[in-house]
Amino acid sequence: MKLVRFSDEYRKNLVGILDGDTVYATTWTGDMLGLLRSGIKPLISYAYRYPLDKITLQAPYIPPKIVCIGRNYADHAKEMGNIAPEKPFLFGKFSSSVIATKEPIRWSQSLTTQVDWEGELAVIIGKAGRNIRAENAYVHVFGYSLANDVSARDLQENDGQWARAKGMDTFCPFGPVIVTRDEIPDPHDLTITTHVNDDQVQHASTSLMIHKIPDLIAYISQAFTLEVGDIILTGTPAGVGKGMKPPRFLKTGDVVRVSIPQIGVLENPCIAED
Amino acid sequence: MKLVRFSDEYRKNLVGILDGDTVYATTWTGDMLGLLRSGIKPLISYAYRYPLDKITLQAPYIPPKIVCIGRNYADHAKEMGNIAPEKPFLFGKFSSSVIATKEPIRWSQSLTTQVDWEGELAVIIGKAGRNIRAENAYVHVFGYSLANDVSARDLQENDGQWARAKGMDTFCPFGPVIVTRDEIPDPHDLTITTHVNDDQVQHASTSLMIHKIPDLIAYISQAFTLEVGDIILTGTPAGVGKGMKPPRFLKTGDVVRVSIPQIGVLENPCIAED
Repeated sequence: MKLVRFSDEYRKNLVGILDGDTVYATTWTGDMLGLLRSGIKPLISYAYRYPLDKITLQAPYIPPKIVCIGRNYADHAKEMGNIAPEKPFLFGKFSSSVIATKEPIRWSQSLTTQVDWEGELAVIIGKAGRNIRAENAYVHVFGYSLANDVSARDLQENDGQWARAKGMDTFCPFGPVIVTRDEIPDPHDLTITTHVNDDQVQHASTSLMIHKIPDLIAYISQAFTLEVGDIILTGTPAGVGKGMKPPRFLKTGDVVRVSIPQIGVLENPCIAED
Repeated sequence: MKLVRFSDEYRKNLVGILDGDTVYATTWTGDMLGLLRSGIKPLISYAYRYPLDKITLQAPYIPPKIVCIGRNYADHAKEMGNIAPEKPFLFGKFSSSVIATKEPIRWSQSLTTQVDWEGELAVIIGKAGRNIRAENAYVHVFGYSLANDVSARDLQENDGQWARAKGMDTFCPFGPVIVTRDEIPDPHDLTITTHVNDDQVQHASTSLMIHKIPDLIAYISQAFTLEVGDIILTGTPAGVGKGMKPPRFLKTGDVVRVSIPQIGVLENPCIAED
């Protein structure tokens, strides 16, 4: 099942089921995070259907916690001049950084001039847990989505901690689709691709993750309770702008498109402000 | 006005007004974060009063975002072997790390054996904003509270990013009292004290902050929208365990007590698990 949150002419925060180019209303009348917390599987309501081009897709919801994995693809660690870590490398993004597909990634050029993309598979937690064992980890997964771990490379290098570099407003495009776990038997058999305008910049199999999803969930949940709705950004493959020769950073008018065929497309234009 | 969130025998998440050793019910029937978002000033309801020793104080609420300032007192920067930074040094803690007064700070000794205290003044955001000017900053402050920025020094040194070192479950004791802004004319004229058991370990004036609250709010809100309920931990003065010779870390049975006379006392026992 593909779930989306959307607004129409009159209302927002509606939960729908996406099928092809049509979004169907569901029997769930609350919001998406409420749906996850309820544990209920929504049913399609054929009473209302919306052509995709008549609605606005919102970010699925605002996650309580965004846990990110750095350096989780060997080729990306290498292009950034880092060694692939033995243990998962954790950091966080503030929830206030989340935006929807089509919303602009914005930054002030007085703060950063090195804004870069990182296309990633996002894991959606559906069942809370602490000290989860790897062999039970998938029970805690509600489904999968897409994210762009937008990063200001100059701040990342100079600030020490990455709160600003990774957590600024608009630096976490998320969604638009959540695919439930049952539809993706193996999340390490997906191909993730990032385009900047017409250029394919990232293209890799999620099988290349160094630390796989069950191990990530086990490791993270040793330190933090994973709550319903928390998301894990599982790391980005090679092909970020910082690794190019010469480096390439985002500029006004660029459009970044992250996609996984089984999930969908997350697409954001860029606006550099003074 | 001193606000607390509390539970009695039957209900939790009640909002009360603390006066001496008595908590009075209020005319606000929602929860604390709802109160902040409403912008309404609650009135005392003398119909219900609770002696403090008959109720359980909860953390005021779970903040959407916890923004922390590192190295904001020169003597603390020095004891940690750091230089006091020209700009505020930002990092975050996950909201899932929040606990109430009296609740135990817990950690697994397989993860860390260097758990340390950091008593801090917490600023409660009452009005959302982005790019707030320093001269308008106090308009965005709802009030003040206490926090303990509990830190695993070994993870802080080895992990690179501080997500685990600072963000583990129970590593953000917060509250129990929120004092509204009108009762604290100058938040830089407070004395913050931390005790570990009977030992006074930190004792300093908030006038010693390098970057003062208006400048912090201005700086933070350049990067992140400050939302209602976000809290800013303004940094810790000298006197953490890591800075002692030899270093002193928390152990099972220790009790950490952070206090500011005009605000209250935040007190947490410690439990080191295997």
